[in-house]
Amino acid sequence: MKVRAVVLEGIGDIRLRDIEVPGTLEPADNEVRIAIKTVGICGSDVHYYKHGRIGDFVVNEPMVLGHEAAGIITAVGAHVSDLKVGDRVCMEPGIPDFGSLETLEGHYNLDPAVRFWATPPIHGCLTPEVVHPAALTYKLPDNVSLAEGAMVEPLAIGVYAAAKAEIRPGDVAVVAGAGTIGMMVAFAALASGCSEVIVSDMATAKLDLIAGSPGIVVVDLNKEKLADVVAARTAGRGADIFFEASGSLHAFDDMMDVVRRNGRIVLVGMPQGRAPLDVVALEVKEISLTGIFRYANVWDRTLNLLGSGKIDLKPLISASYPFDQSIAAFQRAAAQNPSDVKVQITL
Amino acid sequence: MKVRAVVLEGIGDIRLRDIEVPGTLEPADNEVRIAIKTVGICGSDVHYYKHGRIGDFVVNEPMVLGHEAAGIITAVGAHVSDLKVGDRVCMEPGIPDFGSLETLEGHYNLDPAVRFWATPPIHGCLTPEVVHPAALTYKLPDNVSLAEGAMVEPLAIGVYAAAKAEIRPGDVAVVAGAGTIGMMVAFAALASGCSEVIVSDMATAKLDLIAGSPGIVVVDLNKEKLADVVAARTAGRGADIFFEASGSLHAFDDMMDVVRRNGRIVLVGMPQGRAPLDVVALEVKEISLTGIFRYANVWDRTLNLLGSGKIDLKPLISASYPFDQSIAAFQRAAAQNPSDVKVQITL
Amino acid sequence: MKVRAVVLEGIGDIRLRDIEVPGTLEPADNEVRIAIKTVGICGSDVHYYKHGRIGDFVVNEPMVLGHEAAGIITAVGAHVSDLKVGDRVCMEPGIPDFGSLETLEGHYNLDPAVRFWATPPIHGCLTPEVVHPAALTYKLPDNVSLAEGAMVEPLAIGVYAAAKAEIRPGDVAVVAGAGTIGMMVAFAALASGCSEVIVSDMATAKLDLIAGSPGIVVVDLNKEKLADVVAARTAGRGADIFFEASGSLHAFDDMMDVVRRNGRIVLVGMPQGRAPLDVVALEVKEISLTGIFRYANVWDRTLNLLGSGKIDLKPLISASYPFDQSIAAFQRAAAQNPSDVKVQITL
Amino acid sequence: MKVRAVVLEGIGDIRLRDIEVPGTLEPADNEVRIAIKTVGICGSDVHYYKHGRIGDFVVNEPMVLGHEAAGIITAVGAHVSDLKVGDRVCMEPGIPDFGSLETLEGHYNLDPAVRFWATPPIHGCLTPEVVHPAALTYKLPDNVSLAEGAMVEPLAIGVYAAAKAEIRPGDVAVVAGAGTIGMMVAFAALASGCSEVIVSDMATAKLDLIAGSPGIVVVDLNKEKLADVVAARTAGRGADIFFEASGSLHAFDDMMDVVRRNGRIVLVGMPQGRAPLDVVALEVKEISLTGIFRYANVWDRTLNLLGSGKIDLKPLISASYPFDQSIAAFQRAAAQNPSDVKVQITL
Repeated sequence: MKVRAVVLEGIGDIRLRDIEVPGTLEPADNEVRIAIKTVGICGSDVHYYKHGRIGDFVVNEPMVLGHEAAGIITAVGAHVSDLKVGDRVCMEPGIPDFGSLETLEGHYNLDPAVRFWATPPIHGCLTPEVVHPAALTYKLPDNVSLAEGAMVEPLAIGVYAAAKAEIRPGDVAVVAGAGTIGMMVAFAALASGCSEVIVSDMATAKLDLIAGSPGIVVVDLNKEKLADVVAARTAGRGADIFFEASGSLHAFDDMMDVVRRNGRIVLVGMPQGRAPLDVVALEVKEISLTGIFRYANVWDRTLNLLGSGKIDLKPLISASYPFDQSIAAFQRAAAQNPSDVKVQITL
Repeated sequence: MKVRAVVLEGIGDIRLRDIEVPGTLEPADNEVRIAIKTVGICGSDVHYYKHGRIGDFVVNEPMVLGHEAAGIITAVGAHVSDLKVGDRVCMEPGIPDFGSLETLEGHYNLDPAVRFWATPPIHGCLTPEVVHPAALTYKLPDNVSLAEGAMVEPLAIGVYAAAKAEIRPGDVAVVAGAGTIGMMVAFAALASGCSEVIVSDMATAKLDLIAGSPGIVVVDLNKEKLADVVAARTAGRGADIFFEASGSLHAFDDMMDVVRRNGRIVLVGMPQGRAPLDVVALEVKEISLTGIFRYANVWDRTLNLLGSGKIDLKPLISASYPFDQSIAAFQRAAAQNPSDVKVQITL
Repeated sequence: MKVRAVVLEGIGDIRLRDIEVPGTLEPADNEVRIAIKTVGICGSDVHYYKHGRIGDFVVNEPMVLGHEAAGIITAVGAHVSDLKVGDRVCMEPGIPDFGSLETLEGHYNLDPAVRFWATPPIHGCLTPEVVHPAALTYKLPDNVSLAEGAMVEPLAIGVYAAAKAEIRPGDVAVVAGAGTIGMMVAFAALASGCSEVIVSDMATAKLDLIAGSPGIVVVDLNKEKLADVVAARTAGRGADIFFEASGSLHAFDDMMDVVRRNGRIVLVGMPQGRAPLDVVALEVKEISLTGIFRYANVWDRTLNLLGSGKIDLKPLISASYPFDQSIAAFQRAAAQNPSDVKVQITL
Repeated sequence: MKVRAVVLEGIGDIRLRDIEVPGTLEPADNEVRIAIKTVGICGSDVHYYKHGRIGDFVVNEPMVLGHEAAGIITAVGAHVSDLKVGDRVCMEPGIPDFGSLETLEGHYNLDPAVRFWATPPIHGCLTPEVVHPAALTYKLPDNVSLAEGAMVEPLAIGVYAAAKAEIRPGDVAVVAGAGTIGMMVAFAALASGCSEVIVSDMATAKLDLIAGSPGIVVVDLNKEKLADVVAARTAGRGADIFFEASGSLHAFDDMMDVVRRNGRIVLVGMPQGRAPLDVVALEVKEISLTGIFRYANVWDRTLNLLGSGKIDLKPLISASYPFDQSIAAFQRAAAQNPSDVKVQITL
């Protein structure tokens, strides 16, 4: 079918145009059709725009961008009972094989057959209407706006990281990296039981955006050593949890010093190259380390946390552009203004 | 040695008098001496006062009352390095055998040899000075008052229950029972990752005390059915977690209806007699159920949560009496005024 | 379509006859067709045969029996890549909605929409050919016979119970009940890390079948008290794990005495009526209790354990009848000869 | 006091002589005195003998060697109730501060104040009598010999690694490294629920010692690629668990290829230098990785597994020397004959 969409044609070349895409707008029995209303621009969208690839994922054909979306249901399939036309919803953008081993074991995000919006060769959702599995479409609470609904995708990464960290009440966490994902992790960790989250970065402007939020302590690595701050705030014991959200190999240098005995590390950022792991330090402290790949089974929990007011992302929506100014929106996002967190497009 | 203390002589008979107790005020190598400044009156103190026993624990000899205490260190043993004279502290009141199997496995609260303040035949701490293991003495953050420090003991029960519940981010919990412990569990569960806590009770006056707190939903069982409220607030799925803090066998009636598939139940209240467990319902939903006995390894976490401002207990301190009016304080507590939560004594 | 099958017509009335059933023998894209070769008779089959119902599940229409099956693949759907015609397989008999909340969370057995063979109104597999999802069809290791393959279903219950028990190396477990399921639990627990499993029952003949197996200790409740044996074999500490597989309310009497502090209980048997739970004992020991409903994600693990020789079920196959003597097979099973464990039918 | 002991004087210089050591042979209230009967020579003893240091632990003063010991109790302290004179026992060689934070949390092995036999500057147990905490002294089952009792120390490392791996029934594990510790891990993993353990090494002679043991698959890295064997034996899915017991940085090369999605890695070996961690691969598979430092809370479980016959270490005791030939025993151990696993000394 032919749809109007924001299409990445090649490196640095985005157009709003009609494009032929597979599929139909008729929902199957377990699907719904959604009128897209708000789409956030993700760092990965920008990365494809600037570089045409992320690791092994290469944009070889024109591809519709966008995967952080909220909208309104316009049709439901025959077997859909818990969603109805007019519902305000957000959509989980990765569709697994529902009968795969990984899905049955509860890790559908790890299914190698996942089809994820705007990850080549799968088209994204920056287009007026999409059809999506009802199982991956979530009703927004009445007090959560469509703009906030389009923030669920990045926040879900933070909530999933927090879930993987198995936070215990009153834990102190470190988040290395104050980019959008680092912020999401920090807010999610606070809402999930941490008493305090120490966020470190070299980017002072990013730190300034969150300094002063209750429970957040910022560490400007230009001025302070992370290890010193952590020691001072934990009576020398170290942080219970370390979230790596910077993607920098430097974070691996002081990781083991900063985490307490029996502490945990969750890797969220994706560094280039192998990271130097201090195995002896990890063993002597019996630190547990794991990593996350997107998310699974946290979309409704993320909405619970937004709906309850425990997390407020409205201040992080920096700008909003109408659909016909999508190119300008991408240029704004690509400029990476340090005081911008999230640029959105509305339809 | 002879000390001045609040002594339970027998049922309904409390006196402030000198009493001969074992021990000395000289701290051993791993001990500290603390000048007691604030002691909260616990429901168990009142129960001993009114009934002379709790289950198998019978007050056969005069016993010093009090176990919820904060104070100031006045001497430290030779091997104590992380506490010093003048530190404001609170004290964990159960002293295990430090070499027992249970202690080594991390469950020192389960050690049958635990000596717990004001649990017969062990004397409590309503006396000007006590000696205590440094390992069970916790420095108060600067912004936590001595009155709040004396609230750590009941709050630690809530935090421990929350830890046992293995709360995942955005869980919805039910707390059956709005007494002091139920309130502590509710506040701890919210601070530990729940997006919402539904508290049910027959005592409208108790519910009124917490209605309106962010994240708290109250259910007056005189007017509403718990199952209806939970269904409405969880899209029919049920609560992720159920904390039983009422001590009533009635709570077991709707427990299984109210908890979602794969949900968890934590038993905190101690009912009289056997509870009727719906085994088939538990199996069909694969619900996990456990219970807690006091607490272990949560005292510092509880202080983190108080110090960070995630939990504010100041509104729950209903009245404060000087040491020489301790009898009046106990009479006030024993009156169980529904709008009273915690009565304290200061020295 | 019309198939030949073993049909339960009503209480006490089984016939081998042609019956019209829904569906087709053409596998859909993600399905396979299997020629059934061996079917074990389960206690539930016998229960339906004798009583026409199990709890709320009532046989109102003629129903094909059988759900413990192994066979050979005769056709595969277009998207099936890991199974091929001629493969020897066994089949997990409960088919969930693959997009349900419970399935996505890894608990597909808890999906209320599960269609389970020979649970009314769903037909079973005592018929020459069936079509089944490839995702729930498991290739047998070369050294596992079709007769053993038909034992995977009951053994999977044991393995799932063992998995839920979170056995730690060298745990000592109690299994209450020496019926088929109790035996499966006992063998699974031993293969899964227990150093010793103490099996109790009143049925001496059942105990005799497993007495002498390495790691199994039997307790004839006519002669000995379970608590005495457990105390003697654990230096008074109690068992780490208690599996309830008797379905008797009596098991709840000594459960709390027999389990150690911080121990675990897994409920497998389904008693009639509410069980009297000693809440205070559970709390004072901080015992964790859960239950299981069938199984999820253990079929391949069960085959690993059979294929490796860690579990040998061949001695438990008591008799085998050809398909045309299915009525006799059911009569034999219904006689509940104490030395019979499993009666099978071959096609 | 002056005792006769096997003393490491410096690099390559061991003597059996009298030496002045701290302490007394009178057990304190919670201690026992043990007549040492068998002591195994550990790789660390040999390393100190050859190199005078292990990492930061340097032998600056003459030090008594030995920490793998079994013996017979000759005196008990006033508060010891579960051990008596004449009991055959083995001893956990690391003594923590029993009131430390780590001990109270159940991780006494992580207490930085642990005093561990034959780790400088703490003397070992190659001497006729020692005094030890009763809490760390374990009664041998009647069917476990003193020679086997002296094998509990290395086996406990394997059991602890298996416990940390959270093995689920029927898991397939890889053990990289077929040295003594690798063997212990492999046997422990099999006894703890694995259906199969694949052991890889370059040392063909070591692999030959365990090839043919039930459940063990050996991979001679001179002839085969580990990834190929794992793929063939797991239908391409990968191993559930990977134990690194070689101490080689090469093991980190194929670790991520060999472990399945959502699999686990336990690091036991201590490599020199930082290990190159493939973070993206870990994240995409959401692999969990942890490491162990000695052991905690597994000594009794290890004895359960030995006593039940699930693990048989007798074939691994390669040679036994009397106390007065201790120098010869160390020379034998230092020769590192590939067919030797454990050399012991008897008193």
